[in-house]
Amino acid sequence: MTLTEQITQLAKQAKAASRELAKLSTSEKDKCLSAMADALEKNADVIKDANALDMEAAAKSGLPAAMLDRLKLDDKRISGMARGLREVVALPDPVGKTLDERVRPNGLKLQKISTPIGVVVIIYESRPNVTADAASLCFKSGNATILRGGKEAMHSNQVIARTMIEAGKKVFAQFPEHAIQVVPMADREAIPILLGLTQYVDLCMPRGGEGLIRAVAECSKVPVIKHYKGVCHVFVDADADLEMAEKIAMNAKVQRPAVCNAMETLLVDKKVADKFLPQIAQKLGEKKVELRCDPTAMAQLSKLNGQLRLKAAAEQDWFTEYNDYILNVRVVDGVKQAVDHINYYGSAHSDSIVTRNEAHAKQFLNEVDSATVYWNASTRFTDGGEFGMGAEIGISTDKIGARGPMGLEELTSYKWIGIGDGQVRT
Amino acid sequence: MTLTEQITQLAKQAKAASRELAKLSTSEKDKCLSAMADALEKNADVIKDANALDMEAAAKSGLPAAMLDRLKLDDKRISGMARGLREVVALPDPVGKTLDERVRPNGLKLQKISTPIGVVVIIYESRPNVTADAASLCFKSGNATILRGGKEAMHSNQVIARTMIEAGKKVFAQFPEHAIQVVPMADREAIPILLGLTQYVDLCMPRGGEGLIRAVAECSKVPVIKHYKGVCHVFVDADADLEMAEKIAMNAKVQRPAVCNAMETLLVDKKVADKFLPQIAQKLGEKKVELRCDPTAMAQLSKLNGQLRLKAAAEQDWFTEYNDYILNVRVVDGVKQAVDHINYYGSAHSDSIVTRNEAHAKQFLNEVDSATVYWNASTRFTDGGEFGMGAEIGISTDKIGARGPMGLEELTSYKWIGIGDGQVRT
Repeated sequence: MTLTEQITQLAKQAKAASRELAKLSTSEKDKCLSAMADALEKNADVIKDANALDMEAAAKSGLPAAMLDRLKLDDKRISGMARGLREVVALPDPVGKTLDERVRPNGLKLQKISTPIGVVVIIYESRPNVTADAASLCFKSGNATILRGGKEAMHSNQVIARTMIEAGKKVFAQFPEHAIQVVPMADREAIPILLGLTQYVDLCMPRGGEGLIRAVAECSKVPVIKHYKGVCHVFVDADADLEMAEKIAMNAKVQRPAVCNAMETLLVDKKVADKFLPQIAQKLGEKKVELRCDPTAMAQLSKLNGQLRLKAAAEQDWFTEYNDYILNVRVVDGVKQAVDHINYYGSAHSDSIVTRNEAHAKQFLNEVDSATVYWNASTRFTDGGEFGMGAEIGISTDKIGARGPMGLEELTSYKWIGIGDGQVRT
Repeated sequence: MTLTEQITQLAKQAKAASRELAKLSTSEKDKCLSAMADALEKNADVIKDANALDMEAAAKSGLPAAMLDRLKLDDKRISGMARGLREVVALPDPVGKTLDERVRPNGLKLQKISTPIGVVVIIYESRPNVTADAASLCFKSGNATILRGGKEAMHSNQVIARTMIEAGKKVFAQFPEHAIQVVPMADREAIPILLGLTQYVDLCMPRGGEGLIRAVAECSKVPVIKHYKGVCHVFVDADADLEMAEKIAMNAKVQRPAVCNAMETLLVDKKVADKFLPQIAQKLGEKKVELRCDPTAMAQLSKLNGQLRLKAAAEQDWFTEYNDYILNVRVVDGVKQAVDHINYYGSAHSDSIVTRNEAHAKQFLNEVDSATVYWNASTRFTDGGEFGMGAEIGISTDKIGARGPMGLEELTSYKWIGIGDGQVRT
């Protein structure tokens, strides 16, 4: 078989499995997921053996230590995967919910009902626990998954998927064998082939660095839901409680700088810049955060004593997700300029205003065109768990389909059901 | 300016206009739309003059009479456009609705609020009234539109858009000039350029024949919502009320055969085929419907006297949207075979089961993977107006974003708003 034939077969099998998955009841799905969780723990040794093969090859190929750590599976991480699956069992089934209902004058009853999407492709990088997480969320929402992890995690991913499938089949005879599939070849060309099969694949969700996501979006013919990066802002308004502003800005920047909902740019209204900038710069300096400043902020901060790491911000910096102890700082003239800055330089991910002024807050919340906008709260809350979704399969900055954190509900589509007693159109 | 520069400018202007549109109140939008409706009627002569230019060129180029008729604008059609706009005024604003609301244990209040999508590109064929319809629905939902009609309607489309914009500006000083734009050049390459500008364009909705829609989907880098064709089915179950089945099948086939929600294939359970097939064939024969039969149906129907137009169905026929007095007929063995036929040959548009058997109905409604599924009703109801949406901008057979008929609500996205009093993540 050619690569195209192999990939086509994979996608076709997934589509057939998705038809079977759509028929499963909540309890059937949950029974399978519980069995999968148990099997992951029971098969920990087999999984670790497969992972050891990946680790060995990765070490030989010179993968950096941080990446090796992400690739590694031990008992604790395997238990973590199992726990994740059990949490998914506990979540409500997102399928079959009545989203809207109406009876037309002719008596035709229309119901808008949530359904699975069908076949979901997940493309991701090295962490093999994503295999279990993504497969379980797709399974609970009635979707067949095609998983394409990093080639360095191939053995681990295959064994995890195999373990889940075997466990499902053991407790449920009609378990669709191809509900969860790992792309079994590392060829780069597999991705464009798979994402060209619009007749079988309904959605692709790439997770990883901007380069990976752009490459996927560029070649895909199926819908892609994604976020390229998180260039998040905190705007300290003229009417901000500056103590609150400091708390929020510090949390957004340094609580966990390497994640997508961390702040990359601090905007400060010029009316409070004199007072706020020295205060926050001192706190950020204590955490060794480098500040890339616009000329106004630079003029103010360079007067200060202390060990601030100051740099003039370059145009490109305002677009940059550092994921590091680096922060852009700009002094702006009012809400409008803050909004304009965010809509131009931002990534439509998560942005926050700190203010006591309701009109300013409303303007900001309405006009900032981002997936998630906050008033007096840290940008760090953009997360499925923090939103009460129970689990998260990704975050979207797109506007078609899901936007913001994506949990089980965001893995569904809907259909319209019309129930009549012989209605015809006149 | 190169073509790419011109198109980029257009898209950039649309994005800027979309930011302004998102700020408008319902009453501001409605005031503009009412003024636009009046202006279309008041400017009827100017519109007819522009249309005459299009008609003349089209006649010269040998456009068929049916197409010429679709292109033509007269007072009645112009009043129809104005009436359409006034109907949009009467519809509720789909933006700013609270779709979900929750307060987290830390006191953070999360609201999921409907928003405009942003910039919507509509690509369509010859009927110039689509210009007014689509622009008004996008405007009411706060979206900037870029309209690309057929080149044969260029003058008409330009004047309609111009009339609407001028009217909006007259009654509302902050009316965003570029809220409604018609692509001013007929170059084919304009479409792939426009649909490559993912930083400015949020959605494309092509409307027209399958060829146009496939070409758009093929080249687009922005999300496309569409339906390629309507291969709709009626399945007459073993437990059907055959009188009702006849009424529904006749309505689905002949009430208006040229539309996408008309039936193309009739599936009959073998248990009732003996009885039902002769009865429906006779009625269809009276309407001069050609029947393309599977071998079983053929064997039964060819025994009958009468003037039936019978043909053996070819494999390709089951995939075909005739939009004509032609119907495929197949005898199937139970619900499962009907479902499998529909999911394989259908276009995921609209399919109906006629039955008294609730279990059969539920199986059909659950397992047929189409945008709209009916129980004891005609497929012809798949329509924004019939669904009570008030107006329709299209029908989607996609699963990401809107599915089924699309009205104003389906032209929205959402954002999450988090309101706190200083919450930070721990």
